[in-house]
Amino acid sequence: MGLRDEIREQPEAVARLLAAGPRQVDPVAEAIRRRAPSFAVLAARGTSDQAGVYAQYLFGALCGLPVAPSTPSVLTLYDRVPRYGEALVLGISQSGRSPDIVRVLDEGRAQGALTVAITNDPESPLAAAADHVIELRAGPERSIAATKTYTNQLVAIAMLAARVADADGADAELARLPARIEGALASEADAEKAAARHHRLDRCVVLGRGYDYGTSREWALKLQELARVLAQPYSSADFEHGPIALAGTDLTVLAVAASAAPAAQVDELLGRLRALGCDVLAVTPEGRDVPADVRLSIPDGVPDWLMPMVSIVPGQLYAYHLTAAKGLQPDAPVGIQKVTLTT
Amino acid sequence: MGLRDEIREQPEAVARLLAAGPRQVDPVAEAIRRRAPSFAVLAARGTSDQAGVYAQYLFGALCGLPVAPSTPSVLTLYDRVPRYGEALVLGISQSGRSPDIVRVLDEGRAQGALTVAITNDPESPLAAAADHVIELRAGPERSIAATKTYTNQLVAIAMLAARVADADGADAELARLPARIEGALASEADAEKAAARHHRLDRCVVLGRGYDYGTSREWALKLQELARVLAQPYSSADFEHGPIALAGTDLTVLAVAASAAPAAQVDELLGRLRALGCDVLAVTPEGRDVPADVRLSIPDGVPDWLMPMVSIVPGQLYAYHLTAAKGLQPDAPVGIQKVTLTT
Repeated sequence: MGLRDEIREQPEAVARLLAAGPRQVDPVAEAIRRRAPSFAVLAARGTSDQAGVYAQYLFGALCGLPVAPSTPSVLTLYDRVPRYGEALVLGISQSGRSPDIVRVLDEGRAQGALTVAITNDPESPLAAAADHVIELRAGPERSIAATKTYTNQLVAIAMLAARVADADGADAELARLPARIEGALASEADAEKAAARHHRLDRCVVLGRGYDYGTSREWALKLQELARVLAQPYSSADFEHGPIALAGTDLTVLAVAASAAPAAQVDELLGRLRALGCDVLAVTPEGRDVPADVRLSIPDGVPDWLMPMVSIVPGQLYAYHLTAAKGLQPDAPVGIQKVTLTT
Repeated sequence: MGLRDEIREQPEAVARLLAAGPRQVDPVAEAIRRRAPSFAVLAARGTSDQAGVYAQYLFGALCGLPVAPSTPSVLTLYDRVPRYGEALVLGISQSGRSPDIVRVLDEGRAQGALTVAITNDPESPLAAAADHVIELRAGPERSIAATKTYTNQLVAIAMLAARVADADGADAELARLPARIEGALASEADAEKAAARHHRLDRCVVLGRGYDYGTSREWALKLQELARVLAQPYSSADFEHGPIALAGTDLTVLAVAASAAPAAQVDELLGRLRALGCDVLAVTPEGRDVPADVRLSIPDGVPDWLMPMVSIVPGQLYAYHLTAAKGLQPDAPVGIQKVTLTT
């Protein structure tokens, strides 16, 4: 089982979580509705923190709940504890073992906050620290670069937010995810070709907006970890506030141009970047005509709020094949471990 | 008046805000203490958003107040309004004119939240939208790259947080800032030399942790805007969760190694990065022996919570001189305007 297998296993892993999900998620959603927290605090690092960005947008849009990152350094370096009592404190971690993340949950619980852990290991310290646990059921993830646990983190967040918001039609859309992810896997041949074309890539920006922003961050992280590309993610709105000065013939732009709501703005920006000479590669639904040199397709019809589970897939495949095209080992990235214990 | 003049004018601009500050800040602090919001929501983009990262750490550590970014896309793209009623809603913008930032304040006010604008223009739409305004008094900033308005945003945030927390000895430490920033300006000759050495730089990472994290982000943004370097900021803890795979002889590492609390961890990491072959440039207090190839000094004795106003200065000077060393125009960066109006 290598990285490519784990990428391809995502439809099955998502289906497993969807099947087991309601039993896990419903009591947590019920507890959140009963407590009606005024905001949420999120503790996560690495890939899990990109899933947290999705949570930030989704809890805001679906549940009206503002989400504050926990800035664990405030606790661990400065030994000051923010007031979490009225919050939902949410910890996300594949391994459930990073001490600074566990610490935030411990503090939340000590202050009487409602605490929830989303983790692949129900026996982990993070799970033990939380009132409620949502187990990812992604199966063991052996590759150092997280893929299927990330997707399942997104699905767990989506199930939870939809249930808290009692969103109409959510279950039917969730049930379509495995087939849609399967459809996105069909981009592999194009992703491999695009990667071959970029085999010298050592820097790029990755753009996305709204629900696509977290996806741009996760895609960038895969490129950093695996292919040693200095890939910098931006919300396309933030990119216009300064960093757009980077645009030119020496800049490769990867774009998640998948969601419908930001389409007009994102397409306008990509058109401008192409006119400035940038090389643009876009992940986009079939049939959408974005200004790009190369397109990687995902199925159309995916609603924005469930887009990230589908639109990350061509990015994962591109990162995998770029790593190989650069002569690096996707199954043995340099200098990192599966579990990082920061304090 | 060019960019270099505005960088050098910072001690004076800070002194002006400190003198006018209590009259502006005290009523806002009083209103916050009276309302006792359970969390804060922050709306900002670009450089102002880096000041917001400082606010996130400082309000957490000094006032126990968790801070949630406002994710303006949730409002402007998805037309969903999170519940802001129990929050302090804080808008930060030099110009006070970006519509999406004004929108967040409007919504906060409509929901009965306490709203505060920090802006250089008290006649701006942002100021009009807020219950309270803190005027930066930085004087007109003509350069496209923000420097003195950023520093004054930090000072406004520090004055406000210190007054809300009734922090012992804060006024005396704040009063020392102009002299300390003046001291940091003495790094210019070294910054120019380091920039000359890096005149081919087109990618790097910028590390910092705790209060230094926002500084690493702002330093990176200056390098992107001015010198067209793909400079990627990380909390040094997040860097260890994956991106450390980038380390090697082809990676330049800029580090804000200024604050005392994260010193042991940051120094250990920089030592490891040097051993992996990275070229390390560190901003660090005089007398601290960080593992680095080149050091840019700031005065010692600055408390961590007021570090960002001092530690950004060598970074600004380095960005200015690197821009010149690369044959670019610091006073006329490519493709960006002073005011960006995202919606």
